[in-house]
Amino acid sequence: MRAYDIILKKRNGKELSTDEIEFLIKEYTAGRLPDYQLAVWTMAVFFQGMNRRETADLTMAMADSGERIDLSPINGVKVDKHSTGGVGDTTTLVLAPLVAAAGVSVAKMSGRGLGHTGGTIDKLEAIPGFDTSLSLEKFINNVNRLQVAVAGQTKNLAPADKKLYSLRDVTATVDSIPLIASSIMSKKIAAGSENIVLDVKVGSGAFMKTYEEAKKLAESMVEIGKEVDCQTVAVISNMDQPLGQAVGNALEVREAVKTLRGEGPEDLIELCFTLGTQMLKLAGIVQTEAEGRKRLEEVLNSRAALEKFKELISAQGGNPKVIDDLSLLPTAKKKIEIKAQKKGYIERIDAEEVGLAAMMLGAGRETKEDDIDLAVGVTVKSKVGDKVNPEDTLATLYINDDNNLKDIKNRIQQAYTIIDKESENNKLIYEIIE
Amino acid sequence: MRAYDIILKKRNGKELSTDEIEFLIKEYTAGRLPDYQLAVWTMAVFFQGMNRRETADLTMAMADSGERIDLSPINGVKVDKHSTGGVGDTTTLVLAPLVAAAGVSVAKMSGRGLGHTGGTIDKLEAIPGFDTSLSLEKFINNVNRLQVAVAGQTKNLAPADKKLYSLRDVTATVDSIPLIASSIMSKKIAAGSENIVLDVKVGSGAFMKTYEEAKKLAESMVEIGKEVDCQTVAVISNMDQPLGQAVGNALEVREAVKTLRGEGPEDLIELCFTLGTQMLKLAGIVQTEAEGRKRLEEVLNSRAALEKFKELISAQGGNPKVIDDLSLLPTAKKKIEIKAQKKGYIERIDAEEVGLAAMMLGAGRETKEDDIDLAVGVTVKSKVGDKVNPEDTLATLYINDDNNLKDIKNRIQQAYTIIDKESENNKLIYEIIE
Repeated sequence: MRAYDIILKKRNGKELSTDEIEFLIKEYTAGRLPDYQLAVWTMAVFFQGMNRRETADLTMAMADSGERIDLSPINGVKVDKHSTGGVGDTTTLVLAPLVAAAGVSVAKMSGRGLGHTGGTIDKLEAIPGFDTSLSLEKFINNVNRLQVAVAGQTKNLAPADKKLYSLRDVTATVDSIPLIASSIMSKKIAAGSENIVLDVKVGSGAFMKTYEEAKKLAESMVEIGKEVDCQTVAVISNMDQPLGQAVGNALEVREAVKTLRGEGPEDLIELCFTLGTQMLKLAGIVQTEAEGRKRLEEVLNSRAALEKFKELISAQGGNPKVIDDLSLLPTAKKKIEIKAQKKGYIERIDAEEVGLAAMMLGAGRETKEDDIDLAVGVTVKSKVGDKVNPEDTLATLYINDDNNLKDIKNRIQQAYTIIDKESENNKLIYEIIE
Repeated sequence: MRAYDIILKKRNGKELSTDEIEFLIKEYTAGRLPDYQLAVWTMAVFFQGMNRRETADLTMAMADSGERIDLSPINGVKVDKHSTGGVGDTTTLVLAPLVAAAGVSVAKMSGRGLGHTGGTIDKLEAIPGFDTSLSLEKFINNVNRLQVAVAGQTKNLAPADKKLYSLRDVTATVDSIPLIASSIMSKKIAAGSENIVLDVKVGSGAFMKTYEEAKKLAESMVEIGKEVDCQTVAVISNMDQPLGQAVGNALEVREAVKTLRGEGPEDLIELCFTLGTQMLKLAGIVQTEAEGRKRLEEVLNSRAALEKFKELISAQGGNPKVIDDLSLLPTAKKKIEIKAQKKGYIERIDAEEVGLAAMMLGAGRETKEDDIDLAVGVTVKSKVGDKVNPEDTLATLYINDDNNLKDIKNRIQQAYTIIDKESENNKLIYEIIE
């Protein structure tokens, strides 16, 4: 088998065999194929696509390129959740205890990653003492005991994906649906997921900018799931404005606790109910969406979900008192309110600009080596559809450092589009693909 | 400027600026861009193409990537000729003295290259004593004195093209019209050509297998010529069967001498007349094709062209007696005739198979390091349209070594398709693009 022939075949629009895809990935991971051959192959895939079978084969070849985590010692059905990433995406912090309280095992491995704020792992580390580096044994034990654990990935999962992604990143082949879909799914499968609810975000603050692209990605991942016996459901959700209000690590923990207390922002609750319902259905705990939603409302209203978050924090060495006293979380030195400059209705909040502002304040990483300031960030008080008057607060900055402040304020101001006529709030949930 | 952005732009079907193309080629030649970025860029070009201006810019960027030969000390108008390569392509050996005798300056730089037989330089070295490694000064002096010189390229011309071609060769991006066209034209321009007649061959023994592809390539090269002020005419000619009869180095020199004596195969003469007429027109020596053809017939019939070949041989240290005594050329130890196995009409001779047979006999190089046996090869006696009876000779092998003989015989036998009903000879000249 020769890489050249495989490149040529794909370039000419032919279907690759399982063996051919495995050969490419195995030889590349082992360093026996040059970058330039894999790079042109991904460009050929960009133009010619891959069918469902090829995409699933690529997923499994990458999942099998390194260690795979065995989560079979976990009792019962476990369901994983994955978001394609957005601005102020506090979902996991709410959803994990919520569905665990409703009876689903949640064994959540998360990353740090780059972006506007830290990843779930960074956010949890805003809780004093919280330990995200559990051994696999302790991780599994915690899930069996509490039905929930959230930890960082320590193993070298799907190294082929890592290597290929780095190459795609410098050769303009990132935005290919089959390559994105197989990249995401290979990591989830290597991390031991068997049932996955995907939150595919679309909009200015998401990787997918249009509904059509997001739908294609969602469908591709659900198809991969079917091919490789990993039950997968995808929810396509709006990321045109930040989700909830908080964009920042400790700020999002605060928001999560408030949400579990029943005081959360409407959109965040709605998304958690939608995703959670799908998780309950996948776990076989409920049969219908109505039933699932009822179950989640119960554990929210009874404070069982809040209690579960407290247990999770205790079990991983964090200070459970934060649940009752949010002032124990890191707090920024000062706040600055950004005021509306005119009267009108908010038509649009550019999520990406808000995210960039949070990153400039220090809430996120631009490079892997950057430190995160867990206390800082932005809260978006006025959201799309809201009526505002001059001097009403649009958003609040939480600051430890005055650098670039003028630029940051400007970004927030310009992220808001205020118009004269009444505008409707964005639709939050576009579609569920299963 | 970043290579990434240029790749993305081309991938998205946008037109690249002159600066962007120069940046890519300059930085790549200097080793400041990695292979994988140039490789994906060529794949993007494969899918999205390049327009006339971009292709011309790429041509000039590659031509300027190394030294350029200055042929301006040559008096008067000089016209170059380039063939895209075929089987038994004896053309240059006939054409150079023919048009020189008719008054055009021919300063022909040729390569050795890989293939079924050697390049023009190898063929000329079959003439005892012939020196193809002239200094530039001597080369120019010879052209000024005799109107003709044929020498090997010693300088490192268009190094960017060499580097890019090696990369395309292992990444399945060779067969892209703008990349092929700019590759050929960049080398001609770096070698000092100002007027070029291109022989674009199409058929089983050529790089271009279909008329449509050949036409696109021809048009692209003529357009480049227009953009960069290098007058260019392309003749699209048939390479479905070997040209003339001889396929092999000394065999082709024999055929060239016979042709200049007026005893050549019809198709070879016709192609030389067609190409030569275009060369005379480009040089401004004649105005019409009829006039050009008449002029060439005159110098052929008067033996002025044969005399010119003799002068060329003498001037480059070769033994001019070969013109009168072909037995002075290298001769193979034995001949084997391949006979027709049935009665009928020759419908097809697969030129590529005949070429491979010649290469297996030792007439060509498979790798740069291979030695060539100048004496061996194949002559194709019966050609398409000929009527044959069993035991008529189809072709003759000239052999120094019995290795693989059975396989070689089989190849020749199978290259011939003999059918019952009368078949027409292939059209030799398809079209002239100017």
